[in-house]
Amino acid sequence: MWILRLNMTDLKCTVEEAPPAYQTLAGRALTSTLVSDEVPPLCHPLGPNNKLVFSPGIATGTNASTSSRISVGAKSPLTGGIKESNAGSSWASDLARMQIKALVVEGKPKETGKRRGASVTWDAAAGKPKVEFFDAAEYAGKDLYDVYPKIYERFGGKISIAGCGVAGEHGYGNAGVVFNDLSKRPSRYAGRGGLGSVMGSKGLKFIVLNASGAPGVSIANKELFDEGRKKLTESLLTHDITKPKGALNTYGTAVLINILNEAGGLPTRNFSSGRFEGAAKIAGEAIFEGNKQRLGKELYNHACSPGCTIQCSNTWYNADGTERASCVEYESDWALGANCGIDNLDDIATMIKLCNGYGLDTIETGATLGVAMEAGVIPFGDGKGAINLIHELGKGSPLGRTLGGGTGFAGKAYGVVRVPAVKGQGMPAYEPRAVKGMGITYATSTMGADHTAGYTVAPEILGVMGKQDPLLAEGKVALSRAFQATTAFIDSTGHCLFIAFAILDIASGYQGMIDECNGVLGTKWTADDAYAYGVEVLKKERAFNEAAGLSKEADRVPEFMKVEPLPPHNQVFDVPDSDLDSVYGGL
Amino acid sequence: MWILRLNMTDLKCTVEEAPPAYQTLAGRALTSTLVSDEVPPLCHPLGPNNKLVFSPGIATGTNASTSSRISVGAKSPLTGGIKESNAGSSWASDLARMQIKALVVEGKPKETGKRRGASVTWDAAAGKPKVEFFDAAEYAGKDLYDVYPKIYERFGGKISIAGCGVAGEHGYGNAGVVFNDLSKRPSRYAGRGGLGSVMGSKGLKFIVLNASGAPGVSIANKELFDEGRKKLTESLLTHDITKPKGALNTYGTAVLINILNEAGGLPTRNFSSGRFEGAAKIAGEAIFEGNKQRLGKELYNHACSPGCTIQCSNTWYNADGTERASCVEYESDWALGANCGIDNLDDIATMIKLCNGYGLDTIETGATLGVAMEAGVIPFGDGKGAINLIHELGKGSPLGRTLGGGTGFAGKAYGVVRVPAVKGQGMPAYEPRAVKGMGITYATSTMGADHTAGYTVAPEILGVMGKQDPLLAEGKVALSRAFQATTAFIDSTGHCLFIAFAILDIASGYQGMIDECNGVLGTKWTADDAYAYGVEVLKKERAFNEAAGLSKEADRVPEFMKVEPLPPHNQVFDVPDSDLDSVYGGL
Repeated sequence: MWILRLNMTDLKCTVEEAPPAYQTLAGRALTSTLVSDEVPPLCHPLGPNNKLVFSPGIATGTNASTSSRISVGAKSPLTGGIKESNAGSSWASDLARMQIKALVVEGKPKETGKRRGASVTWDAAAGKPKVEFFDAAEYAGKDLYDVYPKIYERFGGKISIAGCGVAGEHGYGNAGVVFNDLSKRPSRYAGRGGLGSVMGSKGLKFIVLNASGAPGVSIANKELFDEGRKKLTESLLTHDITKPKGALNTYGTAVLINILNEAGGLPTRNFSSGRFEGAAKIAGEAIFEGNKQRLGKELYNHACSPGCTIQCSNTWYNADGTERASCVEYESDWALGANCGIDNLDDIATMIKLCNGYGLDTIETGATLGVAMEAGVIPFGDGKGAINLIHELGKGSPLGRTLGGGTGFAGKAYGVVRVPAVKGQGMPAYEPRAVKGMGITYATSTMGADHTAGYTVAPEILGVMGKQDPLLAEGKVALSRAFQATTAFIDSTGHCLFIAFAILDIASGYQGMIDECNGVLGTKWTADDAYAYGVEVLKKERAFNEAAGLSKEADRVPEFMKVEPLPPHNQVFDVPDSDLDSVYGGL
Repeated sequence: MWILRLNMTDLKCTVEEAPPAYQTLAGRALTSTLVSDEVPPLCHPLGPNNKLVFSPGIATGTNASTSSRISVGAKSPLTGGIKESNAGSSWASDLARMQIKALVVEGKPKETGKRRGASVTWDAAAGKPKVEFFDAAEYAGKDLYDVYPKIYERFGGKISIAGCGVAGEHGYGNAGVVFNDLSKRPSRYAGRGGLGSVMGSKGLKFIVLNASGAPGVSIANKELFDEGRKKLTESLLTHDITKPKGALNTYGTAVLINILNEAGGLPTRNFSSGRFEGAAKIAGEAIFEGNKQRLGKELYNHACSPGCTIQCSNTWYNADGTERASCVEYESDWALGANCGIDNLDDIATMIKLCNGYGLDTIETGATLGVAMEAGVIPFGDGKGAINLIHELGKGSPLGRTLGGGTGFAGKAYGVVRVPAVKGQGMPAYEPRAVKGMGITYATSTMGADHTAGYTVAPEILGVMGKQDPLLAEGKVALSRAFQATTAFIDSTGHCLFIAFAILDIASGYQGMIDECNGVLGTKWTADDAYAYGVEVLKKERAFNEAAGLSKEADRVPEFMKVEPLPPHNQVFDVPDSDLDSVYGGL
């Protein structure tokens, strides 16, 4: 297994054997370890001493269901702390199939403005991966939807592409790292935390993988692996949320719009209400029905990456049957919809595609637009105005640059007090005052306000593992802590977090996931070991953040949520600070 | 003695007897105590829970030399920590003469955009001060040079005025609180840390004082006070830096341009060199000679506030003999000159006047422009472009708003790595790599990068108290600590920090300052007591900052200064982190 290092200062690459200490580390566990081990916590995130680390999960590149996630890590330009953000893409399995445990982008060119690409192929003669750089000037400053086809044309259809858009070139705190989906679109994002700007700061536009001839993933215990794989797959095929023609496959993640709206936890107009009167018009059901009407047939969703059995990625079509955008995820739909008071799916889809094309995180963009609307830059509900602001972001105009730094930054640009962010990162689509466990996760996660870091929505809203009252603070510290640790493990397996819906309800599925990992690595982990693994990841991340200056006072929701009751339940965020401190204190 | 509270939520005012615990507190000691006691450290700086506190010093309002300073305190929108910024103005002595120990602005109007003024007069019948609000809509959005004369016209010539400019209305992190000078100009700024925006956020544009009929400052021991006053005055009249026709009175604070340039410590073009080839053209000597040429006579400087014997405020004149700007301070001259690569005094003076008119801190503005130039927004040396950017700041245009948040903020807006700021606040006119003690002060001060917080330049560059090598790190921790504590005391006496040049060299002057305070308060402080008083102030400020989330990791100079050698001495900032931590650890 290899660690591949691309040094952008001198364009030297090294292919080293992964050290034994990293043997069981993969995905988030490995990106966070490498960042902890090698990045000075107080370095400038866009300077030469930050590193951008890519790592596929333990099971990535195998035929395990829904396991093709790639973790991306670095010191975050958005939060100032450690960051792991992951995406589903063939890029992940291609990297794994070349037996690359981690790809580390280091250094920074002396000259500014130079844009390069890196092509990674399998050198059969040498029996290891090989890197070549190419001039990427012709792809700079352009919409990724224009650029991706050109790269496929140049390097052939078998490649996978990681990249950053103009947002990353501009150095925005809101710039994601993008990966191709199965239809070669630049649409699968490790979106959060400004990692696209870390890539951009290093003058790197694209990393093109071609795994042809690569040996594939070594599996230590094939039998155990297959056994685990089958158990996990079975749970996914059975559970109502993850099964074929189930909730996710039919309505996509946007199935949550109506559910959260009903629960009074759908943040609306910059977190001023938990209900949006236009919710039904932008919900997953509306997407399904709208497509049916426009296409004249029922359309079920597709996979974002190879081997996914959940298949929750949708496409929104124009009235003329042409594609408008893929994918309209719940978080994007909410961020650019309800949070901006916009109930027009066409406008929302346009914005999503623009964000994808420019290299922007849709969540951060929507949360930022909400703040800009609060400031009066444009009115709430102004879809065309919002589209225009995203174009300004793309251009890197002064107006765009007042927004490019993300939610917390835009709050400062416009002197706004109601800023829904933690550690500078905008909150996703669950209101802390209406879903208290999520508020605890937002406040305390090492990642800033992040829904995937500890998705207590599963029990609080969806009743997975048994329903818990979302309005109650009691018991939620332990719940968030458990979800955060479990998530840190799942994020290291290469599995999509959505398997959790099934495996938290179906015990054999959970065991299957662990058996898969034991099969690949030759370990004998129990469920407790897996939890302990997650805890270790969190502790490393937490230590980095503390060394970067993020003290416990950074683990707080914004002041306004503690004093301003949220309709319709008229609740404030009432989790005591000492409880928040006990989340990591109790690890 | 009174504490006056202006509640902007309901426009209620209270006049309370100052509590006994505050009896010996004044100036910075009192603003920092009130902020510590009453402001939640994690509140939003522009929200209703922040408070803006004004307090005159112990000796302010008496006839003690150079004692008319007003401290302004709040949680800073720029640093996120506690802030005290002080200015010299008749406003300070007027407040003191009404026996107001502190004026506290609290709360926030429910409606946005409403602008009010407050008029404070002495109610002889009641024997205490009285407040009336007035509508200030007609003064909003305008240049303070247009507005101040109208307020003088409305309220009469005997008033003093505190205010915020459009920068404070825009909510900029770079917005100062302005006070009148002796010629009724809006030119004396408590500039640093965004306090103007705290004022603006509360819908308060102006506080007009008329102390007519007020009883004046009570002096407990008139004899001791007079004795101290004479000693201090004598030292000021004797020392080469502070005496009449001495360095400050002749060349103003800009006398430091050539001195720092010679020492290789004049930050040039966004802190990329310690020498500016245009230094001589913008130095204090050039101002003196230029005025002589334009006016046909030698011009010595004037006082900014009543009773100042140093008189270091200059005026720069146009070729036709009309006034261009007052005052061209060293820090402003450097920030908008050398730091931007601009060597044209007329352009610099124009920018200073614009900053004063718009309510911007000149230091923060210049440090921010340096970052914008590094980003390529305009080229270094482009005086007309820089003037235009200040106009954009004034307008609150998108371009202006990319800069309004100050140095650290602009660095994020443009993805710049070389950002000379600590805790978000731009560094003033001394290079940490060439004047190591100042680097320690910048890094560790509770105020963010602040030259006045511990002005080790006195021994390191000027030889006050004996010359110390500015390039050596050794011994500078103790030096910075001693200066920070001593400064915290001086900032509480109401004296201008410039008395330090004299009293650190002339022991009787130092004793005079303490005797003055003992005379006013009836205390029996020794020099050790004064130092301990300063230490207490620092500890309070430090505790606030920690509770606001500023951990020791915030006490660092930016990374680039640790790795990039600075010409001409080619030194990096080599003070170990552990030494920085020992500054406050050793209090």
